[in-house]
Amino acid sequence: MSEITTPTLPETETPAAPERARRSGGRGGMRQRTGSGTAKYRNLVNNIARTEILTPETLDDIHAASMTVLEEIGIDVILPEARDRMKAAGAHVTPGSERVRFDRGLIEEMIAFAPKSFTMHARNPARNVEIGGNNLVFAQVASAPFVADREGGRRAGNQEDYRKLIKLAQHYDIIHTTGGYPVEPIDIHASVRHLDCLSDLVKLTDKVFHCYSLGQQRNLDGLEIARIGRGISMEQMEKEPSLFTVINSSSPLRLDGPMMQGIIEMSSRGQVVIMTPFTLAGAMAPVTIAGALVQQNAEALAGIAFTQMVKKGAPVMYGGFTSNVDMKTGAPAFGTPEYMKAVMAGGQLARRYGIPYRTSNTNAANTLDAQSAYESAMSLWALTQGGGNFILHSAGWTEGGLTASFEKFILDVDMLQMVAEFLTPLDVSTDALALDAVREVGPGGHYFGTAHTLARYENAFYSPILSDWRNFETWTEAGRPTTYDHANRVYKEALAAYQQPALDPAIEEELDAFVARRKAEGGVPTDF
Amino acid sequence: MSEITTPTLPETETPAAPERARRSGGRGGMRQRTGSGTAKYRNLVNNIARTEILTPETLDDIHAASMTVLEEIGIDVILPEARDRMKAAGAHVTPGSERVRFDRGLIEEMIAFAPKSFTMHARNPARNVEIGGNNLVFAQVASAPFVADREGGRRAGNQEDYRKLIKLAQHYDIIHTTGGYPVEPIDIHASVRHLDCLSDLVKLTDKVFHCYSLGQQRNLDGLEIARIGRGISMEQMEKEPSLFTVINSSSPLRLDGPMMQGIIEMSSRGQVVIMTPFTLAGAMAPVTIAGALVQQNAEALAGIAFTQMVKKGAPVMYGGFTSNVDMKTGAPAFGTPEYMKAVMAGGQLARRYGIPYRTSNTNAANTLDAQSAYESAMSLWALTQGGGNFILHSAGWTEGGLTASFEKFILDVDMLQMVAEFLTPLDVSTDALALDAVREVGPGGHYFGTAHTLARYENAFYSPILSDWRNFETWTEAGRPTTYDHANRVYKEALAAYQQPALDPAIEEELDAFVARRKAEGGVPTDF
Repeated sequence: MSEITTPTLPETETPAAPERARRSGGRGGMRQRTGSGTAKYRNLVNNIARTEILTPETLDDIHAASMTVLEEIGIDVILPEARDRMKAAGAHVTPGSERVRFDRGLIEEMIAFAPKSFTMHARNPARNVEIGGNNLVFAQVASAPFVADREGGRRAGNQEDYRKLIKLAQHYDIIHTTGGYPVEPIDIHASVRHLDCLSDLVKLTDKVFHCYSLGQQRNLDGLEIARIGRGISMEQMEKEPSLFTVINSSSPLRLDGPMMQGIIEMSSRGQVVIMTPFTLAGAMAPVTIAGALVQQNAEALAGIAFTQMVKKGAPVMYGGFTSNVDMKTGAPAFGTPEYMKAVMAGGQLARRYGIPYRTSNTNAANTLDAQSAYESAMSLWALTQGGGNFILHSAGWTEGGLTASFEKFILDVDMLQMVAEFLTPLDVSTDALALDAVREVGPGGHYFGTAHTLARYENAFYSPILSDWRNFETWTEAGRPTTYDHANRVYKEALAAYQQPALDPAIEEELDAFVARRKAEGGVPTDF
Repeated sequence: MSEITTPTLPETETPAAPERARRSGGRGGMRQRTGSGTAKYRNLVNNIARTEILTPETLDDIHAASMTVLEEIGIDVILPEARDRMKAAGAHVTPGSERVRFDRGLIEEMIAFAPKSFTMHARNPARNVEIGGNNLVFAQVASAPFVADREGGRRAGNQEDYRKLIKLAQHYDIIHTTGGYPVEPIDIHASVRHLDCLSDLVKLTDKVFHCYSLGQQRNLDGLEIARIGRGISMEQMEKEPSLFTVINSSSPLRLDGPMMQGIIEMSSRGQVVIMTPFTLAGAMAPVTIAGALVQQNAEALAGIAFTQMVKKGAPVMYGGFTSNVDMKTGAPAFGTPEYMKAVMAGGQLARRYGIPYRTSNTNAANTLDAQSAYESAMSLWALTQGGGNFILHSAGWTEGGLTASFEKFILDVDMLQMVAEFLTPLDVSTDALALDAVREVGPGGHYFGTAHTLARYENAFYSPILSDWRNFETWTEAGRPTTYDHANRVYKEALAAYQQPALDPAIEEELDAFVARRKAEGGVPTDF
């Protein structure tokens, strides 16, 4: 108990002393708080009642309006094979055009085949993640073209930073999966980039990963790398979802070729599709959040229905990405009150259909300042209370997705862990009610030395990674570090502490051979 | 519509382009966003379903344990008059001691007299606030010994900063009341400080205010100044609560003299008591949140019961201030997962008793960094979902309450406005569903120029005070300002835009005469 400093007791020279917290000087500065967290942050369950901002009636209204969109306006589907499959399933394809219309009965029939929940399998079974129900899964930032840390500034993505970022994703247990390429490593030629990147995801992490749907061959390569990583047959993998892809619609109301091809390749093999319209209210969607949700829902359901046309029972998630733009400049905004409402309403829609819900931890800040924190915290509020199941861009996403930030990654890890701790049920056992301790201390004492405190103090509360709770004087002596400073230090400590997960040498050999062969074949033809 | 810049359309050279938000350069830098907000931020209602982290059974367990504390352990009540009144009401006073024990039946009988809701009357009726039910009232930071802004650094409180801070509270409609002295002006002698400070609250604001319970005379002077400010009789004021006081217990389990005197003076005249234990788990309360809540509840109910012993029906609030300490240093922590749980559970207890719930917007950061934002945002999450009715320290509180920050005040105003916008019901009218706009645009277009957008774009979304949504290049050209920089600028703009509210010259004359007379009498004797 010697580490506990008794706080200065309240004095009475100024009013309301008890409300003014006093702080001790601390001992020996900030304690080290790195390390990979603990397994307690795996398998998170969110049992908080969902916040419903739509009534059953208005939820029905949004559903019905999106059905009208699908029936009367329809979607442009660019890939002929997808139109053919849709027509075969009963959709109305306008001859000589890309327009496809769907009866609501067809949509409802198809989406009913989607599983309510499923497991995504990692090469390390301890890293499997459960999708759907009350499960909550956090995936790392994905697809940023830029990367940033304080020393290096903001720069184009590259392989070195890519690898550092996925090592960080591996390091923290609260990051349950990577989410794509956290940053785009443009120093690797696009024809073979996916081979190097996915190979790294197998070797440097043992968590589930994502492959981009940018043409059939990339999907096929991704499937093969995931299969090799797990050391199983394709037959087994088709029964055990092991790879996921994000399918974005080209809002408004277009499903493009590579994305539809991605659904065909992934769903036909029982892998996971996350169908996510990108509906910015006021830009690619109506300026009202309700209207943007109507469009989101129409696009999402068209894509989800298509997964089931490809293979009934294929695992799929309902993705929501509705936010607003700054109407004065057209700049996208995130973590706004409108975003919060869209996230919560999206959750209600997903639950209405019984499909796991994917959403995101967003912000539009250019640096790690207060804005980056409040926009993210409000995103976390919305997605937690709104029942998100799979949270893409959980850690590191900043500047509206343009940049993967090392420091923001750490800030997000800390906030995600706080969410996890908040979701841990409050212990209201007889021991926790502490009547004996209250009896022991009685009026006017303090609890620092009680048996009740001694037995619990080390693990009583969440110990944040970044929060600097030293008093002002001690903090000043330490040079007045901000959260940004702490995050800059911690990300490097975490990288230094990173441990590469073990990989069966036979698997590594098979993987290397596959990548070498595919590279020798030229990878994937690029037309850019 | 010329101010809207069409965002750069997604390109395809990198994966998942649609998820990567692109931002226009903006036009002419940050727009000015000062001004006093709008009346839409008055009379806030929180109709979101409350998040209940306690089951009915565990809620009962906490209640029952706190009743056991009051029956078996009891509370030390320092003021003899208070003990006498408690004894007369049926409590058990141990002869020759300060210990008072309360049967649970007595507590339940007494607290049942407390009103479920009431109005607090300002000198400007448009500033009246409704307390209880689904109403949500934000009060400014109170009682900080220090004040800070970037240029002046952290310094002892003084009258000039005191006045600036209450002017800011007046300026923004989202700040519904002041909360005490936002900073303690120690350059005014303690004997007359309350006279100058309360006089300023009448003149520089037209909102409800607080008087400290630091001895009978200060309460009496506060009551008289509130009465004069409203221009009414004391008889009328006794029917119309117009002044509030925060009563803190001296945890654990002590109710001190000035505080009990404050209840006697305020409750007997129908003014508002906010009964708030300060129960830091691990220091002045058990190290478990459940145990701290038991103690909070016992102390709060003892004080609330006492208000009703003084006067049945006297308006009172249930205050919760349970948080944890950093067990390694003893430093108080705020905005933590534990704080969130305590805030939500406190709301359940207050609703169980049908008493309006006071809580706070807290953080323990030493500067306006990401920590200050995430701790506050998580506090706001908890108090909004937990059903706080009256939020003390809503704006400006930082460093665990030791400092009132000008910049944090602005940050908080922005976040409070976001909470208010979030609580505004989503418009799901036929117009908002926007089917006609979706028809007009169809697949592949955009919504910038539609009639639906043109009719709504100016007020479609919340326009933040501080969020910097410019793209990275434009933001860099502007010198890379952080939220702290923006807040520093905005607080000065708001002070420049401040307008002193009109005051009847007869009231001003009466107020000045009263203050002059009381000062001539020496104010209040001080023994420090």
